[in-house]
Amino acid sequence: MTRVTAIAPPDPSIRSAALALSDAQAKPVGALGRLEHLAAWVAACQGQCPPAPLDDVRVVVFAGDHGVAAAGVSAYPAEVTPAMVQGILAGGAGVNALARAVGASVSVYDLGVRVLEGVPDEVQRFRVGPARPIHLEDALTQEELNAALEAGDTIAAEAIAEGAQLLIAGDLGIGNTTPSAALLAASLDLRGADVAGRGTGIDDEALAGKIAVIDAALDRVGDRASDPHQRLAALGSADIAAAAGFMSGAVRRGVPVLVDGLIASVEALLVDEVHPGARSWMVAGHRSTEPGCELAQAHLGLTPILDLQMRLGEGSGAVLAVGVLKAAVAALREVTLLADL
Amino acid sequence: MTRVTAIAPPDPSIRSAALALSDAQAKPVGALGRLEHLAAWVAACQGQCPPAPLDDVRVVVFAGDHGVAAAGVSAYPAEVTPAMVQGILAGGAGVNALARAVGASVSVYDLGVRVLEGVPDEVQRFRVGPARPIHLEDALTQEELNAALEAGDTIAAEAIAEGAQLLIAGDLGIGNTTPSAALLAASLDLRGADVAGRGTGIDDEALAGKIAVIDAALDRVGDRASDPHQRLAALGSADIAAAAGFMSGAVRRGVPVLVDGLIASVEALLVDEVHPGARSWMVAGHRSTEPGCELAQAHLGLTPILDLQMRLGEGSGAVLAVGVLKAAVAALREVTLLADL
Repeated sequence: MTRVTAIAPPDPSIRSAALALSDAQAKPVGALGRLEHLAAWVAACQGQCPPAPLDDVRVVVFAGDHGVAAAGVSAYPAEVTPAMVQGILAGGAGVNALARAVGASVSVYDLGVRVLEGVPDEVQRFRVGPARPIHLEDALTQEELNAALEAGDTIAAEAIAEGAQLLIAGDLGIGNTTPSAALLAASLDLRGADVAGRGTGIDDEALAGKIAVIDAALDRVGDRASDPHQRLAALGSADIAAAAGFMSGAVRRGVPVLVDGLIASVEALLVDEVHPGARSWMVAGHRSTEPGCELAQAHLGLTPILDLQMRLGEGSGAVLAVGVLKAAVAALREVTLLADL
Repeated sequence: MTRVTAIAPPDPSIRSAALALSDAQAKPVGALGRLEHLAAWVAACQGQCPPAPLDDVRVVVFAGDHGVAAAGVSAYPAEVTPAMVQGILAGGAGVNALARAVGASVSVYDLGVRVLEGVPDEVQRFRVGPARPIHLEDALTQEELNAALEAGDTIAAEAIAEGAQLLIAGDLGIGNTTPSAALLAASLDLRGADVAGRGTGIDDEALAGKIAVIDAALDRVGDRASDPHQRLAALGSADIAAAAGFMSGAVRRGVPVLVDGLIASVEALLVDEVHPGARSWMVAGHRSTEPGCELAQAHLGLTPILDLQMRLGEGSGAVLAVGVLKAAVAALREVTLLADL
């Protein structure tokens, strides 16, 4: 994600062929509604019509801690982050259950969980370190930012080399809606009150504190926030940067991305800023209850497939939409042609 | 569906236990949003917490022709109905592809397709006959209505005896949005213009004709429409009555129903009128583009799981939502408890 380079959209001729195939099927034209457009998008991303079944969908959860958690912006203590990493590794987190149900795989990487012991080296392979408190200082140095972006790109490249057809970035880390909201505010020239939500479920007092943290961070960073890389180092975290690098790595290699809630939507916004057109390789899986999620998705022109008031993170909303995407592809592949009736 | 009898809601104590189980899982309280309520509904319907996985979900498509089709209310000729029955039997219809994708099974019954030859006797086992044109005469005699209602009840009973855990009624028949819209108008004291949609994709002229057919039917039937059984015989069809009998048979036996678009939603409204409380055993799978679908679902207090602009019929919208329901159940069954972290 180091230079601004435009991204061409998924193959328009394949997209047209897919829509024409859909129109030729034994059903009223357009009767499968958005499913037809989703299937055409998958086909265009794959460069083949009909598209191959989506048999290799991968969720990569990026875990990290956030210095702002000490400022009381979350309903949970930072000790929850390592417990949830272990939970994902054990297969008992929400994202694991949903991924099994829709036939996707889950992996997790520690980018900067404050205290994380006893997990496999592979999970800590790209560790950068916890984010510093953004209202007081930059979250990352430029070197740390570059390492995190590179980590995400490498993870995407490896998944794609192994056959991944669709990638989802999941988030995990107490406090992570605060830097995400700050990044969103900086991107769209908004303030804390416009973007702050209740995250894990904070009360009014904690919400006021969260807004103050975001505004203090925005004021501290000032004009530096206009550059996406400086913004990400100043207001982000290693896990958010790695996820952005991962999404960038996917779309630059022609692999589509299913975008989850607030955090992934903010990452998508950054990726699309650095690589104009990247959004054409993305579909939003779910609209979370965080107000910033809708703002970011609307700015990207992404209409979520689902809206079920989820706010778990971990990529879980996007994972749930995998079932709809798989069904859309199945319909385009399997429905009889009118000419064959 | 012959007598007005109230239906008790799914077990409230199991529902509470399921929500408490969800709250005890290793995630913020309520973070899975509507999934938690859907899983609790399945548990309450099953009378056990956690609920069993939804391994036996069945779509039954009720096919029939409608005399109003001759009045030009559809974009397709009535010859399409038998072709689509054959398409479902061959496994190549939209509902087949979606059902395979989400792990549901599909069967189809001919209740009154005008010309249907060469299909297995089993499919024609409950045949009543095509519906007469509702703007000119009653669609069915009371004897035909009773046979159709009984057929649906028998189909539900057999499916449940074989282990069905969740049932979906699908519709198939050129012209079928016209009697459905007429039934809806009669139920809610509306007129043709309030309820008529473009169905398979009719133009403005055909839409005006469809509205006139509905209004003529309403005027012809008059006060008789206030009785649900007379309304169904006068304005319905054998396939719609059988589907209503099927949904009634499911909820009376304590098996939940996933409601599809306009036609199933109108049937659900009738079932809930005859069996007050039946709606508590129903969830809406999808909101179709037919204006009457939203009216019927809103009247029932059912919020659709999906809204993807589908208008295929065949139960396809509800089928797509099966994946979400299965995932909701999986999450309630499989996510680790906070106490076990």
